[in-house]
Parts: sequence; structure tokens; C-alpha cells
Amino acid sequence: MAPSLLTTPSQALALAPGAAASRVGGGGGGSARVSFPSGRVQRRGALGMRVRASVAIEKETPESEPPPTFLREDGSGAGSGSVRERFEAMIRRVQGEVCAALEEADGSGARFVEDVWSRPGGGGGISRVLQDGRVFEKAGVNVSVVYGVMPPDAYRAAKGEAGKNGAAADGPKAGPVPFFAAGISSVLHPKNPFAPTLHFNYRYFETDAPKDAPGAPRQWWFGGGTDLTPSYIIEEDVKHFHSVQKQACDKFDPSFYPRFKKWCDDYFYIKHRNERRGLGGIFFDDLNDYDQEMLLNFATECADSVVPAYIPIIERRKDTPFTEEHKAWQQLRRGRYVEFNLVYDRGTTFGLKTGGRIESILVSLPLTARWQYDHTPEEGTEERKLLDACINPKEWLDL
Amino acid sequence: MAPSLLTTPSQALALAPGAAASRVGGGGGGSARVSFPSGRVQRRGALGMRVRASVAIEKETPESEPPPTFLREDGSGAGSGSVRERFEAMIRRVQGEVCAALEEADGSGARFVEDVWSRPGGGGGISRVLQDGRVFEKAGVNVSVVYGVMPPDAYRAAKGEAGKNGAAADGPKAGPVPFFAAGISSVLHPKNPFAPTLHFNYRYFETDAPKDAPGAPRQWWFGGGTDLTPSYIIEEDVKHFHSVQKQACDKFDPSFYPRFKKWCDDYFYIKHRNERRGLGGIFFDDLNDYDQEMLLNFATECADSVVPAYIPIIERRKDTPFTEEHKAWQQLRRGRYVEFNLVYDRGTTFGLKTGGRIESILVSLPLTARWQYDHTPEEGTEERKLLDACINPKEWLDL
Repeated sequence: MAPSLLTTPSQALALAPGAAASRVGGGGGGSARVSFPSGRVQRRGALGMRVRASVAIEKETPESEPPPTFLREDGSGAGSGSVRERFEAMIRRVQGEVCAALEEADGSGARFVEDVWSRPGGGGGISRVLQDGRVFEKAGVNVSVVYGVMPPDAYRAAKGEAGKNGAAADGPKAGPVPFFAAGISSVLHPKNPFAPTLHFNYRYFETDAPKDAPGAPRQWWFGGGTDLTPSYIIEEDVKHFHSVQKQACDKFDPSFYPRFKKWCDDYFYIKHRNERRGLGGIFFDDLNDYDQEMLLNFATECADSVVPAYIPIIERRKDTPFTEEHKAWQQLRRGRYVEFNLVYDRGTTFGLKTGGRIESILVSLPLTARWQYDHTPEEGTEERKLLDACINPKEWLDL
Repeated sequence: MAPSLLTTPSQALALAPGAAASRVGGGGGGSARVSFPSGRVQRRGALGMRVRASVAIEKETPESEPPPTFLREDGSGAGSGSVRERFEAMIRRVQGEVCAALEEADGSGARFVEDVWSRPGGGGGISRVLQDGRVFEKAGVNVSVVYGVMPPDAYRAAKGEAGKNGAAADGPKAGPVPFFAAGISSVLHPKNPFAPTLHFNYRYFETDAPKDAPGAPRQWWFGGGTDLTPSYIIEEDVKHFHSVQKQACDKFDPSFYPRFKKWCDDYFYIKHRNERRGLGGIFFDDLNDYDQEMLLNFATECADSVVPAYIPIIERRKDTPFTEEHKAWQQLRRGRYVEFNLVYDRGTTFGLKTGGRIESILVSLPLTARWQYDHTPEEGTEERKLLDACINPKEWLDL
């Protein structure tokens, strides 16, 4: 069953990291955990089947081992040195590196638990979660690969919106459009209120030619970003984080950082609060108006910047002393994180609607959160300073 | 500015208790608290104005005193013995009685804090919140009265759907349709994991004749319900709760309890979990296919049943000893409550979209909640028993 509910390619892209992390299984008893080849990651096996009503996504099969590739062996990707193949290899490499760096920073011996699944028609994913470590309350790092079919209207609408290189003019005739999406998605919630939450997500989307218009050109898009959500502003940390993002951007185009910084501030907006959920970073979506190789390299550079952008901050803040009041404020900000993800985040809301694997989609939610009636921090406090920066996004770097 | 985003009268009804609780003010400093005539309720005054971007709801003016009525003095409601007038009087009386019963059950001397507001074109509301008492973590009881205008398409669609008494045939000509909505809405979250959360909401909705079809008949609807969300099943409590609901229903129509019990199970469904948020109760919406006086009396009976349905359970369970594990499970269930309210609840999602008073809308969220990756209670445990009853709704009474 193909994802018939797709209405824009952005949703399909959003699908990749969240909803696409869908599978059958889990849910009570019978999960076998075996050790990862490196000895670091625990994995759950193919037991405990549970059928979940899915309106849009093909059912998943739990796997005991990650396959060499989730790509179809039809010459359209696997083994061909294609962008699909190189993107999948990149996100799987980055998943391993980020998880290793997080385990080392956690320092407790806590390990990521792994779930692997595939779909009969091609595609699959690997979810890794570390919960209740010494430093991290909850850390999820997921990769997934999805093959699907989108309605022709969605394809045309998307091309019209996103086809800034002129591709919109030569639209295909009506007919379902097969697509491919792959992505890495991660949310990292530390325990210490002075250690910020991090989210990153990089994804690649490609359509095949429609079946009734085999000569039509393929379309492709990149999307993603990395953003920081502290409960307290420690300028050194925020500037370090943004400067690493800017360095990654500047290697490719001087317009990228200011453009994607603003896009990030606009995207992570909790409209009903008139606040951003955090202090931003970079975000881009439906990006195809540059050279494809250049954008692949750019997404790779961004994903490779996660560890140097984040781990030094965690090392500095993971043991900072804090009070109950600091923790309560962090918990209130975690409530905002929940509000953004459940109400606005495209990957999450789309995933919930299409019957994706719920535990993978909602691994982004913090372990604990708080809602206090009409809480407003007083003027002049550190809490108010954070709130003000969420209401009026700041420039953290001298541009 | 009228609620231009309304698409169904159900949304307008949903608007009443949540989104309609919108006002300008609060948000940092300057709120004056004065004592309520009864000496029991604290109130916040008209200071601390803050303009909030609102796409659909006229701005609120904080009031220092609740007015005798929120109805317009145009003969369409106030002082006329109309259903509008009697419904407003009923919900304001019930608000006072429920708050008094909750304060007494809390027994700590904690008092409800009150916010009152009005709108220039008519309507307004009273929010009352008790937070961090001895027994209650968070308890909100809101009433509101809304005057608005709905698009003609929404009016026609609503009549077609809800006008089971044949009203759908004589639709008005195109033109915006003025409406009136009033409601009481409440969520009560106790601290003890063996004391259940309660939600209730009763609302009345009425359209005026469209301006370009003054002879067209008025339409009206009632909606509401009361439902129980425990973390552990104590059969005595659940049966008591459902039997009070059934008694209220049976005074009017023997078909009401089974019909509205099922409607409740269907409405409070967390689709992405394939679970209900709790153990149900009664729920009905867009109800107009009975005598109007009879439905007014029925809504009154239901609202008057809140105290006898709930307070005896609270008295029995408020001091039950519990462990950290019981509390953690309660917190996980609170997470489900957040998921339902932010993703599915019509009043909440509509309120968030239309710029209502956010603190009144989200007072329904618990003080604290928890999300644990892939947590599934083991077979045979009390936690699993609760989860099973949320997945497969039970009949609690011998019908």
C-alpha cells in the first residue's frame, strides 16, 4: 500500500525521518535483543508481531540485522554510485558516529537500543534510542528509507512551488508518481537544565518519472537543519553552535547561513504562543535550485557538523549544579517542545496521520514535561531572557 | 472581527469553552488580585494588557467584576427568559458549585484564581484555576459566552449534517450567519495516581437568521459530556461514575446512556495509539433532534451530576498510599492526555488555530507528563489492565 495521503513532497520528505520509521512489532514481550557488531548497540529482533492499522504506509517487517542497503536492487539506486546510494551511506555513517559520540559523552555505559525494520516493496529503517543515561534523559537517532507513490496533483503542486530551476514548465501527464525519500532524524534531551536540547534532520527526496510519461525528468529535493533548544542562554554556547552552522554553510554559499537561519526561526514557531521553541540554527526544505552534487555535499557537511556543534556544549554543561527552580523551568520549556512537535512539526503530524511507527515518531518528545497555568517569568530574570529571545529571534553572530 | 475561520458549528461549539476563553491581558506583572464577593475566589484585574495576534476572535477586555450577564442587551437573550439566558445562568451556577466542592475536597485552603473578560461586541467569560493544591495538581473550570459570525457554507453544511428534524430542507440564502455559543468546560487533575482525572463540558449553540434572509428559522444545538480518566481501574469507582451518568440520561431517554457512552468512547480516541485516553462516560454533539426544553433540562441534569459523580471518588482515593512506579505510570497516562488534547480535541485544536486565550485553552493539560520510549506494561499487571480497557472499551454497567 502506497502513501496515498501525501499531498506535498515536503510531507513525503517529512515522512522519511518520522512516519517512515514505521514497522510492525514491538509492543509487549517477545523482543529479542542481540548485540551489535561493534558490541555497542543492542538490537530487537523480529518477534512480537502486532498489526497496526495503517492508512498509508506499507507494513514493516522487523529485521534482526541491518542490511547493507535499504535500496531496491533495480538499478535505480543500489550499487550505482547514485545520489540515493551516497545519501543512504552518509546518513547511516552519521547515525553511527553521532551515537558513538553521545554514548561517550554520557559516560555511564548506557547504550543505544536499536530497532531495524524493512518493507516488502523496498526501504526500511534503523531506530536507535538511549534512555535514562547519566547525561541524557532521552536521545533518539533514526534513519529511514522510503519508497512510495504520490498523487499526480501533489507532484505538480510541488514542482510549481519548488521547481525554481524551470522544471515546473514541463510537467508530466496525470498518473501516480513513484518517489524515494531517505533521511536521518534525531532529538537529544539532556537532563541538566543548562545543557540544551538538540534536534537535527537531513533528508533527500526524489521522484521517478511517472509511469505514463517515462520520458519526464526526475525531480529531487534536499531538506534539513540543526537547531538548539536551551532553557537558559549561555552566550558562549549559543554562539559556538551558530558559528559551526555558519562555517558549514559558508563553505558552499555565503547566502546560506542568513537565509537558513531565518528559515529556522520561521519554521520552529509556536504560533499560539508567539514564541519559537528555542534559539534556532539552520533549516531548509524543498531545496533544489543549486547543483545536486553541491547540495549532497552541503547536507553531508551539515550532518558532519552535529558532533562538533553539540558535544563541546554538552561536555561543558553536563555537570553544572542546578536547583529545583532551574529544573522546573526546563520542564516548562519541554512542554513547549511537546506543543511544537504535536501541533506544528510536519514530520510528526504527518506521521501521526499516516500510521507510522508511533514510538519512533514520538521519540522526539522529552521524557518529562510540565504545564503551569499562566506562568510568566519576571523581568530581569534568566528565564525571561530566554523567553524574550524565543519571542524576538536574535542574531548570535557578527555577520 | 468575527470568527471567520469557523467551518462547522461544532467548531463554534467547541470554541465556547476553550478558544472563546480568549482575552487580552495577563502575561507578566501588573495583574491585580482582588477578593471574590464570597471571599473564596481571587480575581485578576484589567491591568497588564498585551495584544495577541488573533485571526478570528475579537479582542478581550479584562474585567474586574463578573457582570450579571454576558448576553447582549438587544432583546435576543438577556432578560427574556430565553434558552440563552437560562443556559448562561445554569453554567455560571454550576461553575460556582463545582469550584466550591473542589475547594472543600482539596481541604488545603487553596482557592481558585479567577480571570474575567468581556468582548466589545458582547460575550465574555470567567476562567477559574486552582493549581498545586493538596489533592489537585491542576483544576480549571471555565465558562464563556461568544457572539460570532459563521460563513454561510459552514451554516449550510452544519444544517445538512445536524438538521435531522428536517431543517436542512429550508436553507437560507448565502450570507454570513450570526451565532451565539455558551459553554462550561473543566479538567480536573488530582495528584494521587489512584484518583482519576475528570473532564466535563456542556455547551449551547444558536444561530440568528441570516441578515439577507430574516425570515429563516433559527437553528440550535446542544453538546457536551463528562468522562473519567483513571490511571488504575478501581471497579467500584468506574461503576459509580458510569451509573451516575446513566441515571442522568435515563431521566430523559433510555437510549441516551448507551448512545452517548459509545459516542464518548469514539470521540476520546487517540488514533495513532489505537487507545482511548480513559474509561469514557458520556459525550454528545450537535444534538437538536429532541425538544429544546428537554435538552436544556438534560444538559442541566448532566452538569449537576458532576459533583455527585466525582467527589465521592476523590474522597475515597485522595490519600491512597502509592509508590514511585504508580506515579510514573500516572505520568505516562498524562502524556496520552496531552497527545489527545493537542492532536485531536476539537475545542483545543480550534482554539489554538484561532488565537484564543492560550492559558485558558491549555489549562486542560496536566501539570506534568511523561513519554518513555516503547513502554508496554507486562501482561497481568494493573497497568496492562487499564491499557486493555483503553484499547477495548468495556461496558461498566449491567444494561
